[in-house]
Amino acid sequence: MIVVMEAGSTEEQIQSVIDRLVMLNFSVHRSTGMIHTVLGGVGPEGDLSPDDLQVMPGVKECHRVTSPYKLAARAFKPEGTIIEFANGVKIGGPELVVAAGPCSVETEDQIQTTAAAVARAGAKMIRAGAFKPRSSPYSFQGLGEEGLRLLRAAADAHDLLVVSEVMDQTQIPLLEHYADVLQVGARNMQNYTLLRELGRSPRPILLKRGIAATIEELLLSAEYILSGGNYQVILCERGIRTFETYTRNTMDLAAIPVVKKLSHLPIMADPSHGTGRRDKVIPMARASVAAGADGLLVEVHPDPDRALSDGAQSLYPDQFETLMAQLRIIAPAVDRTL
Amino acid sequence: MIVVMEAGSTEEQIQSVIDRLVMLNFSVHRSTGMIHTVLGGVGPEGDLSPDDLQVMPGVKECHRVTSPYKLAARAFKPEGTIIEFANGVKIGGPELVVAAGPCSVETEDQIQTTAAAVARAGAKMIRAGAFKPRSSPYSFQGLGEEGLRLLRAAADAHDLLVVSEVMDQTQIPLLEHYADVLQVGARNMQNYTLLRELGRSPRPILLKRGIAATIEELLLSAEYILSGGNYQVILCERGIRTFETYTRNTMDLAAIPVVKKLSHLPIMADPSHGTGRRDKVIPMARASVAAGADGLLVEVHPDPDRALSDGAQSLYPDQFETLMAQLRIIAPAVDRTL
Amino acid sequence: MIVVMEAGSTEEQIQSVIDRLVMLNFSVHRSTGMIHTVLGGVGPEGDLSPDDLQVMPGVKECHRVTSPYKLAARAFKPEGTIIEFANGVKIGGPELVVAAGPCSVETEDQIQTTAAAVARAGAKMIRAGAFKPRSSPYSFQGLGEEGLRLLRAAADAHDLLVVSEVMDQTQIPLLEHYADVLQVGARNMQNYTLLRELGRSPRPILLKRGIAATIEELLLSAEYILSGGNYQVILCERGIRTFETYTRNTMDLAAIPVVKKLSHLPIMADPSHGTGRRDKVIPMARASVAAGADGLLVEVHPDPDRALSDGAQSLYPDQFETLMAQLRIIAPAVDRTL
Amino acid sequence: MIVVMEAGSTEEQIQSVIDRLVMLNFSVHRSTGMIHTVLGGVGPEGDLSPDDLQVMPGVKECHRVTSPYKLAARAFKPEGTIIEFANGVKIGGPELVVAAGPCSVETEDQIQTTAAAVARAGAKMIRAGAFKPRSSPYSFQGLGEEGLRLLRAAADAHDLLVVSEVMDQTQIPLLEHYADVLQVGARNMQNYTLLRELGRSPRPILLKRGIAATIEELLLSAEYILSGGNYQVILCERGIRTFETYTRNTMDLAAIPVVKKLSHLPIMADPSHGTGRRDKVIPMARASVAAGADGLLVEVHPDPDRALSDGAQSLYPDQFETLMAQLRIIAPAVDRTL
Repeated sequence: MIVVMEAGSTEEQIQSVIDRLVMLNFSVHRSTGMIHTVLGGVGPEGDLSPDDLQVMPGVKECHRVTSPYKLAARAFKPEGTIIEFANGVKIGGPELVVAAGPCSVETEDQIQTTAAAVARAGAKMIRAGAFKPRSSPYSFQGLGEEGLRLLRAAADAHDLLVVSEVMDQTQIPLLEHYADVLQVGARNMQNYTLLRELGRSPRPILLKRGIAATIEELLLSAEYILSGGNYQVILCERGIRTFETYTRNTMDLAAIPVVKKLSHLPIMADPSHGTGRRDKVIPMARASVAAGADGLLVEVHPDPDRALSDGAQSLYPDQFETLMAQLRIIAPAVDRTL
Repeated sequence: MIVVMEAGSTEEQIQSVIDRLVMLNFSVHRSTGMIHTVLGGVGPEGDLSPDDLQVMPGVKECHRVTSPYKLAARAFKPEGTIIEFANGVKIGGPELVVAAGPCSVETEDQIQTTAAAVARAGAKMIRAGAFKPRSSPYSFQGLGEEGLRLLRAAADAHDLLVVSEVMDQTQIPLLEHYADVLQVGARNMQNYTLLRELGRSPRPILLKRGIAATIEELLLSAEYILSGGNYQVILCERGIRTFETYTRNTMDLAAIPVVKKLSHLPIMADPSHGTGRRDKVIPMARASVAAGADGLLVEVHPDPDRALSDGAQSLYPDQFETLMAQLRIIAPAVDRTL
Repeated sequence: MIVVMEAGSTEEQIQSVIDRLVMLNFSVHRSTGMIHTVLGGVGPEGDLSPDDLQVMPGVKECHRVTSPYKLAARAFKPEGTIIEFANGVKIGGPELVVAAGPCSVETEDQIQTTAAAVARAGAKMIRAGAFKPRSSPYSFQGLGEEGLRLLRAAADAHDLLVVSEVMDQTQIPLLEHYADVLQVGARNMQNYTLLRELGRSPRPILLKRGIAATIEELLLSAEYILSGGNYQVILCERGIRTFETYTRNTMDLAAIPVVKKLSHLPIMADPSHGTGRRDKVIPMARASVAAGADGLLVEVHPDPDRALSDGAQSLYPDQFETLMAQLRIIAPAVDRTL
Repeated sequence: MIVVMEAGSTEEQIQSVIDRLVMLNFSVHRSTGMIHTVLGGVGPEGDLSPDDLQVMPGVKECHRVTSPYKLAARAFKPEGTIIEFANGVKIGGPELVVAAGPCSVETEDQIQTTAAAVARAGAKMIRAGAFKPRSSPYSFQGLGEEGLRLLRAAADAHDLLVVSEVMDQTQIPLLEHYADVLQVGARNMQNYTLLRELGRSPRPILLKRGIAATIEELLLSAEYILSGGNYQVILCERGIRTFETYTRNTMDLAAIPVVKKLSHLPIMADPSHGTGRRDKVIPMARASVAAGADGLLVEVHPDPDRALSDGAQSLYPDQFETLMAQLRIIAPAVDRTL
């Protein structure tokens, strides 16, 4: 912990910061400059917020030295995490992994058609929701277990892995039964009860960044899962909320190389939620891969105009095919294959 | 639903929007202008997102006419909601209600001392957490039920109401047993499983605005609770996340008069979380009341420098007393008493 | 400058940061911790951006110790700046100063009527624009010098000071001739050519915060003026841009106490531009004063429904009178008079 | 203009909105629904802000139908604008155009070395500043005309076009003399005096998006230039300000396909300012091209560690070469060449 004192702070103020740090088991080094006194504290930073020192009289500012996350940090596994599935698919390796599918499972026909289409185009996973977090209580809320059953069947028929969202801790067993990857939605990124339980799951977790979450907060949420013993976490950039309202969210693609530097965890991108508009999904999917993403989540629906949710951001199957062809051109520029 | 077609949209494009609306049980009125054709659709807007039409070819933009929330709208109860407790305290009436207390219950002594101090200064409620959502898994997570027991005892000893946070649906029965008001934290504002369950609670709910939630989304989350049959919802402005990082959040005080116009629900303000820094809490508490808030949540701790959480934003008891004296001066300017 | 090295940074990386600092005339103190090496550099921080060190291999992060502004800092004039005018009005003293008036000067009658109304209600200054920065080239752009002449005459007839906007450096002489305070609009907060020239003006400058400017950037822009020799700068909070679009901007009222701590300059608030909607101006004006502002800028128009610009955010004269009465109640809570 | 009245608005309120519209030369169509009355007004929308109607009693919301910009709209030139230079380089055509160079011209040697390096790697333009807008008055402010002279000479020696920033209208003649493209920086995007004057320039203008500017505001600023008669405007996405502070700005790459839809003007991307950190420039440069940009502005410096400004975001020449090689792989995916 580094504490910079105000120009003109009194000896008493400085001493009282030192006392506070010592009380908290820090050893303190003092450096008195022309203008500012700077205190360096070595100790258990995890228990202390910089804010606690920052409000003390005479303190100008305070900075944490160590990262608040440990297990999610790159240093914990410098070579990077690769998540491997029984069928040989790997996330975080040289091959890009694309998960595609509708927002929600609606009917057997819909999900089978989609699975066939996305598998044919080269997707390795199917994504679809059976439990839907909707901002209005009056919107379609998903088919529940029946949806999961249909999804699993469609995936198995086309050798696809299943990723599907878990909305709260009571749904975990059900999701573990039907899905290969459990998704935590953006709205639940700081649902700590849920994260803690997922730390005990044998399944990989896809953790989406909240729309107002910093990259550090995303890694701290991953830390909740990792610290429970589940090391298989995949991060996902899906857009943050900004003043620009033309697109639903603003994708922060620079987060991809930033996460690659700070953490060993793989990171995918979701241009469907990141833009909210079908005609922007393809350019942003390409851009995500070019920025270094390990894979994509893309919404595809056989008949988006009749989708029960998120139709506006779902690609038609032939658009998805075009996208995959473009990604195959881009992949070598980032030393990837598809 | 109003759909504005692009200048130069074709007859075929216009017809296909009309067909889509008709299929969704809207009756459509068409108005052909010099530049733009505008379609007005009357029908079940709740099932349709403007985005779904906006991505259709030839569409310039699309606007919903009705609000997506009904029960939370001012029109549903034009005279405004007043929430009355057994001891006669009312939230939403002419009297300002201040809830004060520490971030977390830590010890019996701490919570008893705080209760005595805030009651003496004029608070009607004590606020404190027993279950704490912390961004790091390594931070203090609260005392759990023991904390609630201590909190209830301290409140009863000083005739205070209790407000405390519920982190997930499994904690509801416990909170209902010990608290008078169940608080939903900012991070849980869109935890729909939780909101839905709280719709069946006999207790009033204090619903905090998420740091990236629009006012409309806050009202939609309230709608989840109201639509379950629980009409006792208190909203709370506690700061949104912006680019300015000097304070932890940026309080959107204009949200207070906006909510007053859009909704019948009372709204409080939380300047402690809204600023994150003790020396900014008092000015923003005053400002919140001046902007028309129905009450305040303020963190007060007998010894903030040793608080286990949020010490930096907790007032010393004598600061709280000073604040209450200032609020008594301001209250008549907004036709309130304290 | 404090540089925190990555855990695991090499001796060579550390040495190369030290070399860089030494080359830039810093003297460097090295502190080797268990996990991180921290380098403290004392020297000419003004010439160095933390980013320059932050991108060096092995560097985790880098923090500036001294503020980038000097003359605007509180330490430069701890007792605070009070700006006094020939007629005895003082900004920054115990009396609140309210500047009111229309967005633009439109006609002699309009400006005379407004001047009479706002003076009667207790305003000490009239505000109105003769040169209008408009986001569309097709909107009304102001009356120019004729507007300034009408404004001055109206002000003189009612013993009011004049504040009016200067859009570029060529307009300075004209504004100096007619106005008592030259206003720099939010869009020009970083127009450095203009700021530099205003540093040579004998008139006080009202510097509005840009909609995306941090508090530090606002103070740096003030520094441009101060460093030219003009010490009479009044800051103004007028709302920042956030994701919430219900109001035009989000007023960051906490900036008021923050500026009071960081700087000796007075700060006013502009709830008209801060909200963009008449019915939100009054609550936010009250809140601004309660948060500690030294004064207000409020748009008032005798007939807002026919205003050529900003009618939606202009108060009717009787609303302004009501507001002033409410502010007189609030003022003593912040040790002010009005 | 479409005005949606509140549920429960009175006949008198409706009539008074109609009267207001009629007074402003709109013809009004009224549509009375079950819940809401909707008024459609056809007329001179340019003179009227939706806010003006929105604050009228009984009005729920109000939407403009026509775009506030005309000449910048795609409809004005559906085939798209291509800007062609004397040496045959074209911006907006099938070939990607890369402008590279240092933040500032520092010395003859520096700029000559850079010009040679970027030309060799395939850049068609050199970018460098002679007048620098710096947030601190104490930072290096550029070499002025001498810098422009050196820049022109270096460009001519390597057959490069010159793009350089103009900070205010008095500098226009100088810039026109030395540069092929005049750049308007992000901080000046709404400096209307400057924009208006540039409308009379024979040179193409590179207009950077302000860090808090919406896409619509960017197009309105372009409209200022276009409406003066200068149709050669190139837009540039260079990052917006958000809550995420790890990178200096957040690039809004979706703005690229959005601008392509709304406008006929070419759009480039500036990943150097968009990220502020060298190691993020390359991924975001790739992503910009993948998202559909017509070209790039990239900072390159022969010795970034000794650069007088923006060293942290400048690429080493060999990094630039690597980037260009990667872009050549990506280009065909977006039907481009490089």
